[in-house]
Amino acid sequence: MTDHVQTFAALRNHLHQTALLASAAELLQWDERTMMPPDGSEFRAAQVAYLSGRAHAMRTSEQIERWLDELDGWSAASDPASDIGATLRLTRKDYEKQRRLPGQLVEAIASATVRGQGCWDAARRNDDYAQFQTALDEMISLQRNAGELLAEPGQSTYEALLDQYEPDARVEDLTRVFAGLRDELVKLLSEITASPRQVDDRLLKQTYSVDGQRQLSKALAAAIGFDFQRGRLDETSHPFCTSLGPSDCRILTRYEENWLPGSIFGTLHEAGHGMYEQGLPQDWYGLPPGSFVSLGIHESQSRLWENLVGRSLAFWKCFTPLINETFSETATPAQWHACFNRVQPSLIRVEADEATYNLHIIVRFELEQALISGELSTAELPFAWNERYTSVIGVSPPSAANGVLQDVHWSAGLFGYFPTYTIGNLVAAQLYQAADAALGNLDRQFEQGDFAPLLNWLREHVHTHGRKYTADELIQNATGKPLSAEPLIASLRQRYAQVYDLESSPG
Amino acid sequence: MTDHVQTFAALRNHLHQTALLASAAELLQWDERTMMPPDGSEFRAAQVAYLSGRAHAMRTSEQIERWLDELDGWSAASDPASDIGATLRLTRKDYEKQRRLPGQLVEAIASATVRGQGCWDAARRNDDYAQFQTALDEMISLQRNAGELLAEPGQSTYEALLDQYEPDARVEDLTRVFAGLRDELVKLLSEITASPRQVDDRLLKQTYSVDGQRQLSKALAAAIGFDFQRGRLDETSHPFCTSLGPSDCRILTRYEENWLPGSIFGTLHEAGHGMYEQGLPQDWYGLPPGSFVSLGIHESQSRLWENLVGRSLAFWKCFTPLINETFSETATPAQWHACFNRVQPSLIRVEADEATYNLHIIVRFELEQALISGELSTAELPFAWNERYTSVIGVSPPSAANGVLQDVHWSAGLFGYFPTYTIGNLVAAQLYQAADAALGNLDRQFEQGDFAPLLNWLREHVHTHGRKYTADELIQNATGKPLSAEPLIASLRQRYAQVYDLESSPG
Repeated sequence: MTDHVQTFAALRNHLHQTALLASAAELLQWDERTMMPPDGSEFRAAQVAYLSGRAHAMRTSEQIERWLDELDGWSAASDPASDIGATLRLTRKDYEKQRRLPGQLVEAIASATVRGQGCWDAARRNDDYAQFQTALDEMISLQRNAGELLAEPGQSTYEALLDQYEPDARVEDLTRVFAGLRDELVKLLSEITASPRQVDDRLLKQTYSVDGQRQLSKALAAAIGFDFQRGRLDETSHPFCTSLGPSDCRILTRYEENWLPGSIFGTLHEAGHGMYEQGLPQDWYGLPPGSFVSLGIHESQSRLWENLVGRSLAFWKCFTPLINETFSETATPAQWHACFNRVQPSLIRVEADEATYNLHIIVRFELEQALISGELSTAELPFAWNERYTSVIGVSPPSAANGVLQDVHWSAGLFGYFPTYTIGNLVAAQLYQAADAALGNLDRQFEQGDFAPLLNWLREHVHTHGRKYTADELIQNATGKPLSAEPLIASLRQRYAQVYDLESSPG
Repeated sequence: MTDHVQTFAALRNHLHQTALLASAAELLQWDERTMMPPDGSEFRAAQVAYLSGRAHAMRTSEQIERWLDELDGWSAASDPASDIGATLRLTRKDYEKQRRLPGQLVEAIASATVRGQGCWDAARRNDDYAQFQTALDEMISLQRNAGELLAEPGQSTYEALLDQYEPDARVEDLTRVFAGLRDELVKLLSEITASPRQVDDRLLKQTYSVDGQRQLSKALAAAIGFDFQRGRLDETSHPFCTSLGPSDCRILTRYEENWLPGSIFGTLHEAGHGMYEQGLPQDWYGLPPGSFVSLGIHESQSRLWENLVGRSLAFWKCFTPLINETFSETATPAQWHACFNRVQPSLIRVEADEATYNLHIIVRFELEQALISGELSTAELPFAWNERYTSVIGVSPPSAANGVLQDVHWSAGLFGYFPTYTIGNLVAAQLYQAADAALGNLDRQFEQGDFAPLLNWLREHVHTHGRKYTADELIQNATGKPLSAEPLIASLRQRYAQVYDLESSPG
């Protein structure tokens, strides 16, 4: 017994030290994107590579396997959802995954990523897909190789890649749920575009001082519950959220003088990510009980605060006085709300509204599966891309730069990553629906600026569990139902009914 | 031959990786003092301790000794001042020093430092020396132990401690040079206090906007040559300079609304440190050819730009238009210059003017030697302190808080550190005198805003050599003379002659 306790302490210490190193690497990267002087890049890359390499070596150390073997059958680990049980179970899973990829392949992918991003960047600048095609072919072949090595029995190659970002997700389930979502979104979109009431969002394109946006962003993040004693908000060109320790979460946003929603919803989005990190059990930082479940669940937290909360009429009933005062404006809550919910099918995913965003993802989800399986060649890809955009979203990319070349993901080897965005949207709506049912009228609470009940509900049903449950288990436990598209569809329909004067049940 | 080349490459790579790790620890500390959210401290301490511990383990790895032994007699290292020669020679020296201290003693000192600083802080707050005395006794005994273990043949215990900050310095030499300095400063001070012309510095205590000070500080740092492509200027409560890589030097200053010189001279001081770091050979970052010689030489660079340049009349002839415009002021260059050179004997070292600063140091240098040798007990220390202040500086501390408890150094185990401040002042004046002789009239260049010739001279005679020469060798090579108090005395006498209407040769 005492042996087990000591062995576990040694394992836990090893994992804690790995987290110390990995979080230092995170700081190096946060600093690179916010503070570092221009000429610091080269040495910074060497620092990050060295620390990340050391952390990787610690994660794949054979000592881990020896400790785990010694702890096999330890009664304290018998409950797989206990702290100890989850730590042993998931550490073994992570270890085995990491060990399955030979160092040579990991290095080949790392170096193909650098090359791939360079080619992609040039191709996009020159609007010339051909400059990227060879690098993409190489990356697909490496990822296929990795997927084959990672696949568990019964898992397809693509599913194994997806598993890196969304553990235990099944392509079959996602395909079914996404298909239902797609049909409903296409229907909703046609109703919106056919509506006689349209939204004029010139209000959002006036000049808004960056200082004012900075104050407003900080006030909104604090209001919904982002803890500034344990975090900060900064500025960068590509917003993100990073956790540098159990009480040090950094979120970043971007301020554009002539596009107000960028900073507001960017901040709410990253604050949602940040509050998830701040709600994870601190004592287990970097270990499974203190880690996030999956990218989809992480994204559900950001999308919930950005869209379900931040784009609600109740939210703007609460904050219209503040935004009007900050910018000497006089718009009504309904006007702000309408502007922030304008729908306009467009070519670019990252600029998409909520009605079309998931359609962009579904196109990518289908295409990347076909690329990995080999059904689709990279030569055919641009045509397939344009064909889907025209048929699904109703817009036809005039150029590769605005079409197949718009995202960095594939050039960086991120196959299986895109679906996590839509999983996030689905889970956000499903959690919100359950919280609303459990807590009574959330809208009324928001109107009064009271976001604590919702945050506490999320803490209890999502954050506090770390990685102890799979995404599916977590959703089932929190909402009583498996993942479904219905809550998201209902939520969008209800919101757009307000803005576009639609019927609130499908027409 | 090829074997030597390969062995050296392996050693160099090991030292480079150590520098990657150590510089990441530096970033963790910079961030802690500038950016980190309040509750991040505990985990941050663990990160710093872990990374520093790993770096220490790498510096004391026995593999280093094996590599050095294999490289013994390698012809490429025969010139001790070549890159390779200096690397092998100084790596062995550092290695042997580090190995001489048993891990247990290093840990005891680390833990006594934490305790000591806590006691010191409480004692100073309560103005109660007794609360610190036991911790100080413990620290002195540990430092004495360390000094005995570190001492080379012929070195005293105190000299061995001093050697950690000022390698190869001899107490005998410093005692002689400091004594000459002390006599001349006491004489100068009595002339200044007796002068009928006195300086009214109320100009400096008006309200100066922090934004204006920020702009001015950045402009001055850039003007004298601090490279913002390879560095940044930030804000903190205790200004410092840290190097996070060969092209990433961070300097920090402090802005007080009612005390203008704080930010100006703080910035010039830290920029001086920063330009030294920026001038070290980049390819050898963290290795002896890319490292600084000693704390005294480092301090010479900060003091040179702060005092010899920044407190000159020529400097203010150049920057009076800028400072007046920034703050809507109308003072003349002579008025700014006089205010910035006001002399007023005071109790607190960090607030001291140039005429008295070194007297504060000399008191500490004498007292800390007596503490380490045991000639002075901690019970006698407060009395000895007050007696010296009265006789040397002419002020009598009314309390321990403003007297013996004012500095953090001894509580942190920094015995042998204080003299490096005065070495810095001496070397600064001596280098400046040599540069002025070599470059013609520096004053005229400053009046025209031309600081590049001086910076280039320092690059060539100081920065570019890294640690290849000892401080004494460097001073001799750069100035043609051994360290002497004469240039500093002459420089101060000349400056105060302008301000206080003294005769420019001793009265």
